[in-house]
Amino acid sequence: MAAWARAVRGLLLDISGVLYDSGGEGGGVPIAGSAEAVRRIKASGLKLQFCTNETQATREKFVKKLQGLGFDISVAEVTAPAPAACRLLKERGLRPHLLVHDDLVPEFADIDKTNPNCVVIGDAAENFSYANLNEAFRVLIGLEKPVLISLGKGRYYKETDGLKLDVGAYMKALEYACDVEAEVVGKPAKAFFESALAEMGVPPEQAIMIGDDIVSDVGGAQQCGMRAVQVRTGKYRECTACPWPVTS
Amino acid sequence: MAAWARAVRGLLLDISGVLYDSGGEGGGVPIAGSAEAVRRIKASGLKLQFCTNETQATREKFVKKLQGLGFDISVAEVTAPAPAACRLLKERGLRPHLLVHDDLVPEFADIDKTNPNCVVIGDAAENFSYANLNEAFRVLIGLEKPVLISLGKGRYYKETDGLKLDVGAYMKALEYACDVEAEVVGKPAKAFFESALAEMGVPPEQAIMIGDDIVSDVGGAQQCGMRAVQVRTGKYRECTACPWPVTS
Repeated sequence: MAAWARAVRGLLLDISGVLYDSGGEGGGVPIAGSAEAVRRIKASGLKLQFCTNETQATREKFVKKLQGLGFDISVAEVTAPAPAACRLLKERGLRPHLLVHDDLVPEFADIDKTNPNCVVIGDAAENFSYANLNEAFRVLIGLEKPVLISLGKGRYYKETDGLKLDVGAYMKALEYACDVEAEVVGKPAKAFFESALAEMGVPPEQAIMIGDDIVSDVGGAQQCGMRAVQVRTGKYRECTACPWPVTS
Repeated sequence: MAAWARAVRGLLLDISGVLYDSGGEGGGVPIAGSAEAVRRIKASGLKLQFCTNETQATREKFVKKLQGLGFDISVAEVTAPAPAACRLLKERGLRPHLLVHDDLVPEFADIDKTNPNCVVIGDAAENFSYANLNEAFRVLIGLEKPVLISLGKGRYYKETDGLKLDVGAYMKALEYACDVEAEVVGKPAKAFFESALAEMGVPPEQAIMIGDDIVSDVGGAQQCGMRAVQVRTGKYRECTACPWPVTS
C-alpha cells in the first residue's frame, strides 16, 4: 500500500450516478453494491461526507429518499449547494430571484426575496420552461450589475430513463444572453469542497473524492489538493465506445 | 456627399426592431416612419433586400404579416435563415431533428427528417420547453459526430411586451451540454450576407446593412466588406443609459 493511501482519513462521496441513478417512480434506483459500500466505509473508521450538487430537493427530503433506498445517511453528512448559496446571499446582502426546482424552494425560506438583485439558478428540471427562463433573463438584464449564481455547472446527468440537461446548460444560456459570468456554488468550486472537508475535519491531502463527473467531481477535487476517483457508473462512458463526450 | 456614399447601389434591411416590433395581438407594431422609408428607398432606385434572422414563421407567412402592417415587401425580397439551412442540409445529406417554431416547420417540408443526423435550432419560442430541449440534446449527444445548426445566434430581441431570449441562448446551452460548436446559418454568417447581396446583384462595397443588432447586423455586415448602420430602435439602448449590455 502506498504511503499516500495509508494516510487517507476521509472520503467525499458524490451521490447521483455513484450511489444511485435518479428518476422514475421511486425517485431512483440504487447502484448495485453501493449501500453495502457506504456501510463498509463507515465501519472501517474512515470519515465520510456526501458531497452532492443535488438541487432538486431540500437536503431533508433528499436524505429521506436515500434512506428509503437503503442508504445509511443523515442530513449533517450531506454538503449541498443550496445551503452554501444561502450563506453567500446573506454575506453579500443579495436578494435572489429563484429559478430552481419547486422542492428546493424551502431551503431559501429565510432569505429575503423581495426586489431581487441577483438570480440563483439550480437544476430546475420541469421549471426550465420558456416563460421561466425569460423571466430570469429579464430580472438579470434589468440589473445595473447582473449577478448570476449557479448551483453547479454540470452539463447533463443520467436518470433512469436517460440523460437530462443539467443546470450548466441553462447557466450558459443566461450567461450568453446577459454577457455575464456565473458564480458557481457547488462542485467544482474550491470553497465547496473545502466546506465538505471542514465538516469531516480532514485536510485535502488525506481525503479522496469519488464521483462520476470528470469535471465537477474529479477536476474540482484535484484543484482543491485532493486525490479523486472516477467511478464507471452514472454518466461515465468508456472513452473509446461512447458516442458522446466523456467530459461533462 | 462622400465618394463611397455616391457609390452605394443597394441596401440590406433588417426587419424586426428596424421596421417593426414583433409580438402582441396583431403580430407586431410598425416603427414610426418605417413603411414610408421602405417606399422612398424603392422609389429612389436603390436596390433593396430584406435580410432577417426571423425564424418564427415561413417567409410567406411573415411577408403577409408585414404587408398587413403596411409594408411594400414580397417573398423574393426576403433573405431568411431557413431556406439557407435547407440548401446546406441538402448539400451535405443531413437529416435534421428540428427544434423550431411550429410555424417554421413548413419551410423544411421537402427535407428528409427520418433517422436524424443533426439538430437544427431556430427561435422556437414556446417550443423551447424543458422536454423539447432535452429531446434535441439527446439526439445530438447520441450522434457519433454531433452537428448543430443554428438559425442565427442572437442573444435576445424586443417584443411589444419586453425582451425575449433569442435562439443564441439556447444554442449555447446545447453547445455546452454536448461540447460542440454550432454552425450558424443566418446573420452574422458571411455566406448569408453574400447570398442576400447576390439576390440584389450588388457587391459588398456598394451596399449598406441597416439593423438594430451590433453583432448580427453591424458586425456581420462589416466582416463581409459592407458598411453598416445601427438604428436606435428595437433592442438598441443608449450605452450610457442602459442597464443591460449593448451587444447582443
